[in-house]
Parts: sequence; structure tokens; C-alpha cells
Amino acid sequence: MFLALAGGVGGAKLASGLANVLPAGELVIAVNTGDDFEHVGLHVAPDLDSVMYALAGLNDTVRGWGLAGESWRFLDALKRLGGADWFMLGDQDLATHVERSWRLRGGATLSAVTAHFCAALRITQTMVPMSDDPVRTMVDTDLGLLPFQDYFVRHRCAPTLKGLRFDGVETARISDGLRAALDNPALEGIIICPSNPLLSILPILSLPGMRDALTARRVPCVAVSPLIGGKAVKGPAAKNMTELGLPTTPDGIADFYTGLIDGLVIDPEDAPPTRAGLAVESTPTLMRDADDRARLARATLAFTRSLVRPA
Amino acid sequence: MFLALAGGVGGAKLASGLANVLPAGELVIAVNTGDDFEHVGLHVAPDLDSVMYALAGLNDTVRGWGLAGESWRFLDALKRLGGADWFMLGDQDLATHVERSWRLRGGATLSAVTAHFCAALRITQTMVPMSDDPVRTMVDTDLGLLPFQDYFVRHRCAPTLKGLRFDGVETARISDGLRAALDNPALEGIIICPSNPLLSILPILSLPGMRDALTARRVPCVAVSPLIGGKAVKGPAAKNMTELGLPTTPDGIADFYTGLIDGLVIDPEDAPPTRAGLAVESTPTLMRDADDRARLARATLAFTRSLVRPA
Repeated sequence: MFLALAGGVGGAKLASGLANVLPAGELVIAVNTGDDFEHVGLHVAPDLDSVMYALAGLNDTVRGWGLAGESWRFLDALKRLGGADWFMLGDQDLATHVERSWRLRGGATLSAVTAHFCAALRITQTMVPMSDDPVRTMVDTDLGLLPFQDYFVRHRCAPTLKGLRFDGVETARISDGLRAALDNPALEGIIICPSNPLLSILPILSLPGMRDALTARRVPCVAVSPLIGGKAVKGPAAKNMTELGLPTTPDGIADFYTGLIDGLVIDPEDAPPTRAGLAVESTPTLMRDADDRARLARATLAFTRSLVRPA
Repeated sequence: MFLALAGGVGGAKLASGLANVLPAGELVIAVNTGDDFEHVGLHVAPDLDSVMYALAGLNDTVRGWGLAGESWRFLDALKRLGGADWFMLGDQDLATHVERSWRLRGGATLSAVTAHFCAALRITQTMVPMSDDPVRTMVDTDLGLLPFQDYFVRHRCAPTLKGLRFDGVETARISDGLRAALDNPALEGIIICPSNPLLSILPILSLPGMRDALTARRVPCVAVSPLIGGKAVKGPAAKNMTELGLPTTPDGIADFYTGLIDGLVIDPEDAPPTRAGLAVESTPTLMRDADDRARLARATLAFTRSLVRPA
């Protein structure tokens, strides 16, 4: 089996490709929860939902986030009542937040709620939150320290990034599902999805024990670069990397994941990294449809399987 | 100014008639909260919402409850996730429950939330919950003791009523808004709307001090019978009265409100009550549209004003 680390939309695409090309039950996807937040009393988990909707085939592929065929009657009514309308809550999407929130309030873990949802949506791979403990990404910017969604949605990623803080991460425990995947004797490889390295993957890597687990890995770990021609397909990954002094190249990605990966999948538009000892697979990484996702998933799996960890 | 006591749909109709024919600020409507319940983690207040939507002109007049132009995408999505779908939560209606729930959880009183909503919806009369403390109607039936919504929605009022219990009522305080209306020197009269006497009005009358306040009233109190030709226009009022041994006639209504009312508005289809000392106004009480509602409101106000409390 394989373990994938994923954030939001970009990660969700490769995760759904991997989910489709691997036999049922042979993929565990551990998802960033640093973007989670409480909104109008509801626990919203944007990355978990992006991956879940993609795995269930319910995601909106045109808008790029949320559910296909979404409607916005709730949000209109909320606005009429003087409520907060800066965060887009679709009528269908809301069911996820409401059901999750009251199950959490009733004492269920985020892992348990996620497993329940995946079963209801007949998702045949395993999706787990990185942790059941709250971790909250705080973005230090030229406008001050902003909660992630303030930065991402309210300010549309416009402020200049100066640093990141993951509140709660010091005491957060790796979720049982992610721990079990890391420890699974059947684990063949670890894949870091083409998510934003700073905003989506770094929170996972910041969990106590996570970096050690990857450093001590006995199976190959491969990252898929989120860059194509030095730019992010969607989202602020390239902007964030530049702001924090990382070149927006495979070298920048390789530097960021130093010691954690054995191989890097890059797009043919980008020059291979110059770092010694890192295997490189160059293959188109743009995922426009299910065929693209399956093709990149197969290429990434074959590449990962071809690598052998030095003893 | 006038005070109206109201429950759900029938009460909401007369309340909206009264609200339209009285000058702004000259009506206080105190609403039953015994039907309130927690559903999927949300505080749902069916009677407050029925009255609020009617006052705002947003209610669905065809279906008879909820908001006009409602949609049900949330409920479909909730069902897909394995959530509870026995209680109809419309996409727009949900905004009320979500916004109310998180304001209550943040420490606001139900009165404060209600006032906030009424201001947002530009409602120019005052609507208040009967109490800010939780009161929960429990229906004792041949199937056992049922929470109100179980009886009303899940069992569609089919079980035979044996008795009623209002959990929490012993320690519930009359809301500040209702208390202020009762004590207001400008109060001209009290109107008990044509709501279900047992399920909608009895919870209000059961609040400590409420029956005493009505008994000691210095202004006329008038009830509008919910019966037409011995039947309820909508809902289980007649069934409930029969089950608890009250005749489904103006006499039954008069008995139920003994000592509390000076006058009774009845429909011409029903025989006047035989009880001595009770003033009676016979006028059509069916409210099909805004004209009907305004007409009955005017007739009820004129009748109330015509009565003088014996010293």
C-alpha cells in the first residue's frame, strides 16, 4: 500500500488519481487540517473536504473547489439575517459542516467523522486527517499575523508572507490512521502530492514525530512538484515560495524537502534539480481531467516503486 | 399597545394581521418556545420562525410553513452523508438555525438573537420568545412520553395524547420582553391567537407567574378560537382537545381559558359558548390571505377595545 500526504485542490487531484489506479484499500491519504476553522459555529475542514469530494467524484471541476452543481440559497439567507457571507458555504457543502460539527461536539474524533463520511460516500480508499488535535495555520504577513482563512479568503493571499506558525502543533498527535500507515509493514512508498509545500504540506511535516518518521523511512518517498514552468497551477504556492526566499524551481522544492524525499516528479517545462542523489522523473504534471490524473498517478507510482532506499 | 400570545402557523397568521393593522411599535408578540429543539447540533425554534417569517412576509403561504421559494439541497446532501432527514430543513431556513445557534453558543439570549433577526428583516413590531430559558414540551401518548418534534413530525401527531409536560418550565422565567409588555402602562389589551391551546398556548401559560399575570390583568384579554365548525384549520388542535376531554367547541375553548379571558372570537360556523359573563364576537376566522388576516385583526382589536375589565 501507499501513503499520500495531501492538502487541498492540487493534492486532491493526484489523490483521486492514485485512488483510482490503486486497488481498493491500498491507499491511505493523510490530509492537512491546518486550514480548518470554526465559522458560524461550524467546523469547516477545507482540505479534508476537497480530497473527500474528489475521491467521491462529487467535486466541481470547473470552479475548482467545492461540490458540483452547488447552490447558494443558504448564503443569501444568511446575508439577509446580517450573518457573515465572506466565506462561501454552499447548500450541499453545508451538510458536511453541520453533520461534522455536531458529531465532533458529541465527542467523535475528526478521524471517526471522516471515516463515517467516506463510508457513506462509498470511498474505497482510506482518507484520514493528519491529526485529531486542532492545529491552526497562522500566516505572518505585512498586515500582521492572520488566521489562515483570513489570509486565504478574505485577503485573497494578497499580503506578503513573512512566516508561518501552526498553533497547537507542538502538542498535536499524528492521527492513528496516519501513524498506522507509516508503521504498516505493507507500505511500499510515500507520495507528497503537488500541494502548496508551505501552506498544505508543512503543517503535516510539523507534527511532532512526522519529520523523524520520514527521515527514518524504509520505503521511498517521492514528491510531485506543484510547479509548472516555475508557476503554480492554482493558488499562491509560487508567490509564497518567493516571499520566503525559496526559488520557484525544482531546486527550491528539493531544498524544501531535503532529507525527506528520494525522488521528485517534475514537469518537462522545468529544469531538473541540480542536487546530487535525488532521483528525478520528468512527466507532464498538469491534471485537467481523470485521464491526466490517472496517468500522473501511474507515472508517480512506477517512479516510486523504481526507487530503493539505501540501507 | 397590544400583547399577543402566539404559537406556530395559525398564531403567525393573526400575528401578521395585527402587525400590519397596528402602527409600528404598538404590538408585542410573545411566542411559544416549547417546540424548540436541538437538531443536528442546531437550535431550531419552529414557532418563533413561523411568526418571524410571517411578519417579514417571507413565509410560504401554499405549503403553510417555512420560507417561500425554499429549496432542499442541504437535506439531500445530509441524507447522502447518512445524516438525519426526518426533519425538513430548507436551505434558506437553515441560515436562521445556524446563525441563531452560534449566537446562542456565544452567550447571546434567545431574546437578543430574535431582536437581531427582526431588525435585519425590518420587522417593525416586537417579537419575543416567551422565555429565554429552555422549556421543552413532552407529549405523553399511548406510545409513551415523546419529545414534541418526535410526536409532531416523526409520528405526524398520530399517537393518542394522554397528557403534556413542559420540561424546565418550573424554573423558566418570563422573558424580559413579555414581562415588559405585561407591565407596560400603555397596554390596551391581550390577544390569545388562534393557536393550538394545548401545544402552543399552554406552555406560555405554564410559565411561573404567567397565569397570575393574566388573572390579575387590568386590561381585557380576548382569545381567538382556533376552531371552525368544530375542526382545526390545520394541525391537531381538535384531535388533542378531544383526547384530553375538552369539547371541540367554543365552550371547550372557554373552559380551557377560564378566568383568563374576557371575550372570545368565534367563527359563525360555531355556536356561541354558554358560559355566563364571557363576551363573544362572531366573525369569520379563516385566514386565506392578507385581507383575511387584516380583517380578523381589526375585528379582534375592535372587540378587545370594546371590553372593559370589571374593577
